[in-house]
Amino acid sequence: MGRTLVKRYRVGILGATGLVGQRLIERLRDHPWFDVQVVAASSRSVGRAYSDAAQWCLDGEVPPGVAGMRVRGCGPADLAGCDLVLSALDSATAREIEPRLREAGLPVISNSSAHRMMAGVPLVIPEVNPAQLDLVRAQRERHGGGFIVTNPNCSAIGLALGLAPLHRSYGLKRIVVTTMQAISGAGLDGPRALDLLDNVVPYIAGEEEKLEQELAKIFGEVEDGVVRPSPLEVSAHCHRVGVRDGHLEAVSMELGRSVEPEEAVETLRGFTAPGDVGNLPSSVPRPIRVRDEIDRPQPRLDRNAGEGMAVVIGRVRRCPVLGLKMEVVSHNAIRGAAGGTLLVAELLAERGLVGRSGA
Amino acid sequence: MGRTLVKRYRVGILGATGLVGQRLIERLRDHPWFDVQVVAASSRSVGRAYSDAAQWCLDGEVPPGVAGMRVRGCGPADLAGCDLVLSALDSATAREIEPRLREAGLPVISNSSAHRMMAGVPLVIPEVNPAQLDLVRAQRERHGGGFIVTNPNCSAIGLALGLAPLHRSYGLKRIVVTTMQAISGAGLDGPRALDLLDNVVPYIAGEEEKLEQELAKIFGEVEDGVVRPSPLEVSAHCHRVGVRDGHLEAVSMELGRSVEPEEAVETLRGFTAPGDVGNLPSSVPRPIRVRDEIDRPQPRLDRNAGEGMAVVIGRVRRCPVLGLKMEVVSHNAIRGAAGGTLLVAELLAERGLVGRSGA
Amino acid sequence: MGRTLVKRYRVGILGATGLVGQRLIERLRDHPWFDVQVVAASSRSVGRAYSDAAQWCLDGEVPPGVAGMRVRGCGPADLAGCDLVLSALDSATAREIEPRLREAGLPVISNSSAHRMMAGVPLVIPEVNPAQLDLVRAQRERHGGGFIVTNPNCSAIGLALGLAPLHRSYGLKRIVVTTMQAISGAGLDGPRALDLLDNVVPYIAGEEEKLEQELAKIFGEVEDGVVRPSPLEVSAHCHRVGVRDGHLEAVSMELGRSVEPEEAVETLRGFTAPGDVGNLPSSVPRPIRVRDEIDRPQPRLDRNAGEGMAVVIGRVRRCPVLGLKMEVVSHNAIRGAAGGTLLVAELLAERGLVGRSGA
Amino acid sequence: MGRTLVKRYRVGILGATGLVGQRLIERLRDHPWFDVQVVAASSRSVGRAYSDAAQWCLDGEVPPGVAGMRVRGCGPADLAGCDLVLSALDSATAREIEPRLREAGLPVISNSSAHRMMAGVPLVIPEVNPAQLDLVRAQRERHGGGFIVTNPNCSAIGLALGLAPLHRSYGLKRIVVTTMQAISGAGLDGPRALDLLDNVVPYIAGEEEKLEQELAKIFGEVEDGVVRPSPLEVSAHCHRVGVRDGHLEAVSMELGRSVEPEEAVETLRGFTAPGDVGNLPSSVPRPIRVRDEIDRPQPRLDRNAGEGMAVVIGRVRRCPVLGLKMEVVSHNAIRGAAGGTLLVAELLAERGLVGRSGA
Repeated sequence: MGRTLVKRYRVGILGATGLVGQRLIERLRDHPWFDVQVVAASSRSVGRAYSDAAQWCLDGEVPPGVAGMRVRGCGPADLAGCDLVLSALDSATAREIEPRLREAGLPVISNSSAHRMMAGVPLVIPEVNPAQLDLVRAQRERHGGGFIVTNPNCSAIGLALGLAPLHRSYGLKRIVVTTMQAISGAGLDGPRALDLLDNVVPYIAGEEEKLEQELAKIFGEVEDGVVRPSPLEVSAHCHRVGVRDGHLEAVSMELGRSVEPEEAVETLRGFTAPGDVGNLPSSVPRPIRVRDEIDRPQPRLDRNAGEGMAVVIGRVRRCPVLGLKMEVVSHNAIRGAAGGTLLVAELLAERGLVGRSGA
Repeated sequence: MGRTLVKRYRVGILGATGLVGQRLIERLRDHPWFDVQVVAASSRSVGRAYSDAAQWCLDGEVPPGVAGMRVRGCGPADLAGCDLVLSALDSATAREIEPRLREAGLPVISNSSAHRMMAGVPLVIPEVNPAQLDLVRAQRERHGGGFIVTNPNCSAIGLALGLAPLHRSYGLKRIVVTTMQAISGAGLDGPRALDLLDNVVPYIAGEEEKLEQELAKIFGEVEDGVVRPSPLEVSAHCHRVGVRDGHLEAVSMELGRSVEPEEAVETLRGFTAPGDVGNLPSSVPRPIRVRDEIDRPQPRLDRNAGEGMAVVIGRVRRCPVLGLKMEVVSHNAIRGAAGGTLLVAELLAERGLVGRSGA
Repeated sequence: MGRTLVKRYRVGILGATGLVGQRLIERLRDHPWFDVQVVAASSRSVGRAYSDAAQWCLDGEVPPGVAGMRVRGCGPADLAGCDLVLSALDSATAREIEPRLREAGLPVISNSSAHRMMAGVPLVIPEVNPAQLDLVRAQRERHGGGFIVTNPNCSAIGLALGLAPLHRSYGLKRIVVTTMQAISGAGLDGPRALDLLDNVVPYIAGEEEKLEQELAKIFGEVEDGVVRPSPLEVSAHCHRVGVRDGHLEAVSMELGRSVEPEEAVETLRGFTAPGDVGNLPSSVPRPIRVRDEIDRPQPRLDRNAGEGMAVVIGRVRRCPVLGLKMEVVSHNAIRGAAGGTLLVAELLAERGLVGRSGA
Repeated sequence: MGRTLVKRYRVGILGATGLVGQRLIERLRDHPWFDVQVVAASSRSVGRAYSDAAQWCLDGEVPPGVAGMRVRGCGPADLAGCDLVLSALDSATAREIEPRLREAGLPVISNSSAHRMMAGVPLVIPEVNPAQLDLVRAQRERHGGGFIVTNPNCSAIGLALGLAPLHRSYGLKRIVVTTMQAISGAGLDGPRALDLLDNVVPYIAGEEEKLEQELAKIFGEVEDGVVRPSPLEVSAHCHRVGVRDGHLEAVSMELGRSVEPEEAVETLRGFTAPGDVGNLPSSVPRPIRVRDEIDRPQPRLDRNAGEGMAVVIGRVRRCPVLGLKMEVVSHNAIRGAAGGTLLVAELLAERGLVGRSGA
C-alpha cells in the first residue's frame, strides 16, 4: 500500500457494549492499523470488565485483548490517549457526547444518526462519495483539530452503494424503496420475539425519514463548505422482519434516461472503488455483486458476501411505473454499521486526516 | 334477506385436499345456503376417505360431515348432482378441467389463475366489481348453461379491495407495490423451512405478472361482452416471508388528483359493499378497516379482522414520489382465496345465476 | 346446572394489562357468571383508560365493556365492591399485594407463583385435585373471610392434567420431563427476537424448580389443614422455543407397575372431570385428548383443542429407561394460566365458597 | 505430524449435491491431504456441472475447483481412480451402493445409517472409540481390500462425544435424552416452512431408534471381530425445531456411582483426544467445551465452537431422578455429519488404512 506501518492508531470505541460496538470489536481483532485502546459505554457498565459488561452475542468469544479491559465513560478524559474515536452511541447520547469529544480535539467517526444531516458534517460511504471528507479540514479549524464524520443509516448505505453506479452513469431522479430489515439493526434492545414471530412490523421509528433524507445528502455535492443535497426524490416504506442480519430492499427508480436491465447490470458490474479506497484493510474487491439467479439476493445467502462488506443485487428488470427495478441485500451490522464506520476511519487514516500515535 | 330458503345448493369442491380446499371445507361448515356434496381431488386421493386423503393442517378437526366422504375425481361425472363447483385446483389442472365442467353445464367459481385473464371470464371481488358477473349470461349461452367465474390472486384481492374506494373517488393512475406474502399462499407444497428461516425470498413465480395484470382487469369496464382493462400502470415486487397467514403490502400510488392522507382515510372508512353484497353470508360489515396506530396493520394482529374477510389498512401518508402511500394486510387464505371464492358463489346464488337443487 | 342465576359475581383483575390479564379479559367477554368490575395494574397504568394502558396483543379488539374502564391500583380500596379477585400479578408484586387483599376479606384466585407452595394454600387444577379447595375454609377463618387459591405454573398444569389419570390408576413414582415452552409464557417482557430466532434457550429462571415442586403438591393429600406432597420424584429440563402459544412436554415416567402403552391410552381416554367441575362454564367435554398420529401433538395444531382448555397427548410408547413415555401439548396462556385460573374461580363459585354480590 | 506429505488422497463424494455432500465439498476446500476427484449423485444430476446440479445453500460460492466438475453416477466405474469414498447417500441408496463399492476394493466412509448397526462395521467417533477401526482389517480381507466405516447419526455423535469422558470415568448406565434438532439435519428435502413456523414437531422418523441403538454400539467393545454393544439403556425423545443448524440435547443420566456436578465438569474439561486423533487436520484443540453461563449452550451461539467440530456442554447439575443432567449442543451438519465423516477418513489415512494415490 506504500504506507510505512511504523506507527499504529489507538482507537476508542463509544457504545462498545452494544451490538454495533461488539461488531467493531470483532472486526478490530487483528486489524493491521488499529488497536482498541479504550472501550467506553454508559455509566451502568463503567468499571466492569468488558466481557462482564457486554452481553456478547456474536459467534465465538470476546477477543482476548478486549475481554479484560475495564469499561470507561464517554467523556474526553476517558478517551484521552486515543488517536480516533469510533462511535456506536444511540442518537440521543451521541448528540451530547460527540461534540464534546470533537471540542477536545478528537476525530469522531460515528455510526449514530445524531449529526448526519448537519451541513458541515460529511456523510460518507468511501466507495461512493469520499469527496465529502474535504469538510473535515474546516471542522478541524473550527474545533481545535477535532471533527465528526458520519456513516449513513444501515438501510441507506446498502441502497446508496447499490445505486451509486447508476446515479453516476444516468442520474437518479425518483426512487420508491421498500425495506425488509433485520432485527440486529435495532440493537440489543430490539424487538420482542412476541412481535416478530409469524409477523412483519411495517414501521421503524424515524427510519423512512432517514432513508429519504440521507440518500439525497450522500449523492449531494460539496460546495462552500457544506453538502448541497441532490434533488433526488425518495419514498421509503420500512419494515422489520424476522431475519437476524441482512437488510433486503426492493427498489423502483426513474433514471435520467431509459436504461435497459442488461445495460444497468453491466454498469453495476463495472463498478470499482476509487483508488485509495480499494486498498483499505476493510475494502473488498467487488463491492457491488450482481447475481443472475431469479430468486436472489436473499439475506441469509448473500449477507456475508465480501465478508459482509459487499452489497448483492439481483432481479434487475423493467419497472412498468418508474423504469427500472431491482433487489438489494447488504449486511446491516457490517457494511451498514461497524464495517462501514471502520472503512471511513481507514480512509481518514490513509489520507492523513487523523494523527498517528507518537507522530 | 327476503329470500325464501326453501332450497339449498349442493356444492362440489375441486382440489379439496389442498390448503385452499381445506379452507373452503372449513368455511362451509354450517353454511346457511351451501352443502358440501362432492370432494374432488387428484387420482392419488380418489377413493379414499377425505380425512385420510387430506393432510389437514387447520385448527381443529375435519368437519364430521366431510371427514368420511370418499374423494372423487374431477370429471363431469364425478360432479354430477352438484349445483355449483368451487375450484381450488392448481393452474395447470384447472386449465384442462374447468372448461370440461363448464361444457357439462356446471357453474365453476374458481380460485385458480388459469382463466382469470380470459376476456369473457369475470374476475370478481363482490364488493368492488360485481358488474363483471354480467358476463356470465353470455358464457351460459355459449356453454350450455355452464360458466366460469374467477377470484383474483391472493395478493391482488387485498390490494384491489383496499384501493377500490380511492380508485372510485380519485382514479388510480400508477401503483408501485411491494408484497410480503405468507407461506400458506404457496399451498401444501410451499417453501421449505430451510429457505424461509432467518430469510426472505424476493421472488414468487408468476406473482408479479399476476398482480400487474389482474389489477387492471379488476378495475376494468365490461364492454361488448368482455372486460376492457383499466389503463392503470402497476409495478409489483413480490416476496415470501416467514409468516403463516396474511399478506402485507406496501403501496405507493398516483391518483387522478392530489389527495391528502386525511381525506383518503375518510374515503376508505366510508366504503361499504353494494346492497346485495353486504347481506351475503360471508360478507362482513366494514370490509375495509383503517387503523390509526403508527405500526399497524400487522399480519398476525390484523389478518383475522372480520373473520378474515376484511382488509386492514394503516400508515396512510404522503408519498414523496407518487403522492400517497399506505400499508395493507389481508388474509390470503380466507379473503384472498377460499372466503373470496365463496363470496362470489354466494353473490351468484343471490342473483339467481346458479340453479338450486330440485328447482 | 341447577343454579338459579339471579345474581352475578363482580370480578377484579390484578395485572390486567399483562398478557395473562389480557387473556382473562378476553375470556370474561360474555361470561355467564362473572362481570369485570375492576381492572387493576401498576402505578404506571393507573388512571388511564384500559385500552390506552394495555398494549393489547390478542386477536381482535379489547372488549368494548372494558376498553374504556379506568385502570385502578391493586390495593384493597381499589378492589372494594368485588366479589372475587383474579390475580395475574408478577410474583414479587403478588407476594406483597395478595395477602393484603386477603386480609381485606377478598377471595384471591391467583396465577402468580408467590403463594403456590405455602402449605395452607390450595394449588388447584379443578379436574385433578379439587379437594385442595377444602383449605379455603381454614383460611377464611384466619383472614376475615378472605383467602388465596392458586393455579399451578403453566408447564405444570398441562403435565399434571395429562398425568392425573395415570397417577390415579397406577401411581406415579418418577418423572423426567423436558419442556419446550412458548414465548407467551414469559409475558409482555418476554424474550427478544434476537434470542429466539434460529435458536432454543435451554433455561427459564425458576421454571425447573417450580415444575419439580408443584407436581408433588398437586398430587399431594390434604391432611391436618395442609397439603402433604406426594413422594413423586420429578426432574425437569426447561427450554424456551420460538413458538407463540402452546407448551410441548416430552415425559418419561415410572409408574407403580408396568403399563403397556395401549392400556395407558385407554386410561387417558377414559378420564373425565368430577361432576361439579364438568359443568362449569370454562369446562370442556374431554379435558384430555389422545391423538393416534405418529407426529402429534404439535403446539400449533393442538394448542387450541377444547378452546385451549384441553391437553393433547400423543406418542404414548414404551420408555426403555423408565417404562412409559409420551408427549403433551397444552395452551400455556389459556389452560396454563387465564383459563385455568378462571376454572378455579368458577368452581369456588359453584361450591358457594365465594359470596355473590348483593347476597 | 511426522508424515511425509509426498502424496495426496483422491476422494470421491457420493450424494455430493445434498446438504451433507455440500458440507463435505466446503470442508475439502484447501484440505491438506484430500482432493475432490469425483462428485457423484443420482441419475437426475449425472452429466451436469456440479454448480448446476447442486442447489448450493451454504454461505459463499461453490469452490471453484468443484463448480465445473461433471457429476458422475455412484457405481464402481464412476469412482475408479479414487483412493477413498465419502458417502452422504440416503439410507436406501447406500444400502445398495456402498457394498458394491466395497466389493470393488474401495474404502467407503459413510455418513449413511444403512450399515451402522452391522456387527463387523465400525461406528466411529475418532476421539471416542477409534479402536473400532480395527474391524477394517477383517473387512479388507473379506472384500478384496474394500471396507465400510460409518459415522454415527447426527444427534448420536454430539451426545456420545459429550458423554464419553463420563462413561470412561464412571460408567454410563441409563440415559433419558430429549433432542431439539435443526432442520438442516433433514437435508434438502427437509420440513416445510408450514410445519415448523410457530411450531415444534415431536417426531423424526427412525431417529429415536438410531439414537438408542447407536449409543450402545459406540460405547461397545470390539471382540471376536464384532462390536459387542455396551449394556447401556437409552431412551430418546426426538423433536424438530425451527433452528437452521445445531442440535440441542437435554440429557439425564445414571452413572456407575454418584457424581457431583463439579466433578463431572472437571472430568469433561479434562477430556482430550487420543494422540493420533488430536493432530488430524479436522481435529480441534478442546473437542468438549463446558460453559458456565446459566443459559448456555444455545444452538445459534455455540454450534460453531471449534469451527463446528466441538460439542458445547452446559447446565451440568443434579438430576433428582437419575443423578446428573446437562445440555449439549453440537453442529449437526459439521460435527454430526460432514466434519465427523472427514475426521474418520483422516484417521484412516493417518493409520495407513487407506492407500494413497500412486502408492
